[in-house]
Amino acid sequence: MWVMDDQNTITTMQGFSRALQFGDGLFETIKVINGQAQLLNLHAQRLERDLGRLGIACPMGSTRTLLTHVLQAMLAKTGLSDGVLKVIISRGDSARGYGYDASIEPKFTAVFDRLPAIDPSIYQQGIKLQQCQTQCAIQPQLAGIKHLNRLENVLAKAELQSGVFEGLMCNYLGQVIEGTMSNVFFELDDILYTPEISLSGVQGVMREQVLKFLSAHKVSCVIAPIAREQLSQFQGAFICNSVLSIVPVKHLAGQTMTITPICQMLLTAAQSGALYE
Amino acid sequence: MWVMDDQNTITTMQGFSRALQFGDGLFETIKVINGQAQLLNLHAQRLERDLGRLGIACPMGSTRTLLTHVLQAMLAKTGLSDGVLKVIISRGDSARGYGYDASIEPKFTAVFDRLPAIDPSIYQQGIKLQQCQTQCAIQPQLAGIKHLNRLENVLAKAELQSGVFEGLMCNYLGQVIEGTMSNVFFELDDILYTPEISLSGVQGVMREQVLKFLSAHKVSCVIAPIAREQLSQFQGAFICNSVLSIVPVKHLAGQTMTITPICQMLLTAAQSGALYE
Repeated sequence: MWVMDDQNTITTMQGFSRALQFGDGLFETIKVINGQAQLLNLHAQRLERDLGRLGIACPMGSTRTLLTHVLQAMLAKTGLSDGVLKVIISRGDSARGYGYDASIEPKFTAVFDRLPAIDPSIYQQGIKLQQCQTQCAIQPQLAGIKHLNRLENVLAKAELQSGVFEGLMCNYLGQVIEGTMSNVFFELDDILYTPEISLSGVQGVMREQVLKFLSAHKVSCVIAPIAREQLSQFQGAFICNSVLSIVPVKHLAGQTMTITPICQMLLTAAQSGALYE
Repeated sequence: MWVMDDQNTITTMQGFSRALQFGDGLFETIKVINGQAQLLNLHAQRLERDLGRLGIACPMGSTRTLLTHVLQAMLAKTGLSDGVLKVIISRGDSARGYGYDASIEPKFTAVFDRLPAIDPSIYQQGIKLQQCQTQCAIQPQLAGIKHLNRLENVLAKAELQSGVFEGLMCNYLGQVIEGTMSNVFFELDDILYTPEISLSGVQGVMREQVLKFLSAHKVSCVIAPIAREQLSQFQGAFICNSVLSIVPVKHLAGQTMTITPICQMLLTAAQSGALYE
């Protein structure tokens, strides 16, 4: 097999990355503060579960070993103690077709960068959440997995109007699913609601942590299908992900929302670190 | 930004492949015979249309220029005149997030390999088509596009029992869509039926060519949603793709099918080259 890159160099190869060929792999995005990977256990657990669902072996044997190894190497190399670590795992290299040998060896690529600059006003004033035309795919076998098939997130993100922080995606059935880079929670009369993600969407690590925190603080949270038409009934909303933590929503679907006491409690817990415990 | 590969080498980069990060790109798989790219016009047209749908610029300006350029380079380098050319186009390189700059530059990777060994008996005796559990995603914005988000094809292919040549995929609504690496046609009482692919599936180049051929030969072909439950009513079926051309189906869903006169006409046309005209 011969492979040619856009430098017009042709080389002979046995195979090349299935992540590049098919999006055949997964990734984790982890916030690093003071040299510590935040929510490391949840990231390692999700990665292990999703590797299992896709039938991909873990490089270095265990997800915890892998994540710790690349983080230590990055910290040593860069001299930084804060940042964002992204780890991509590919099923391995192969020739052209979808099939692969049982002996295929998984590969990883890790990326480390400084923490992104975040305007602190988003936490105090809230953001605008734009309803996207681009849908989340309905695919039960892939739902929940943070896999590399993310074209729909790319297209949804590209839809966002200038100054809009995040977009909200629904699926073909009109179910609200998630943000382009976050999970979403809604609030009505002191009860939180977050979309069921058995058909579409990603099971975010921060979503899991919020659910744990709400349960520990006796706040009711219902995981259920939410129809697009129900959005106008909610009084408050927030998005969450591993890097941003909790961000309140101020504008959604033409309505103005409030930062509720429950949302404020979560924001305070994120600030103090209590949310991560 | 620092990037670490699984050789534990860490390098500073501005960005890296969005095909690898997100499956943010497309591909074409083209059969080459006697130095000629088969169905080059259809491949170039589809690639141009799909690049436009995804908002990706074409490397070298035009898809025809790109495909011709890489083919000539591969033929010159390898000294071969027959083979399979796969061209992958990535939206370009970027840092971690889904967003990208307007100035992003598309990149390509081309792969050339010898023609795969194909057991000639599949054309005479037909193949077994296994019904897969893995579904085709429902995602109207991506339907039809030969994009790089192909995890479901990988999982469906991995389901195939030993000795089974191809798998048949449905979507969440129970609609029959396509094979893991092919489009499908069914026959009932001298009329052909092929699944509508506006919600799920790939608009294959050989599917387009078959539709043109059938129309030119006054054979009725209906493009419509086909429910899984309808499969048992069909008398014949075939799969098609750019590399295999037409392959009759002998076994499907517990029933034995016949190679019909229409299918035989297509097989003969594929053999003689008339199908490609």
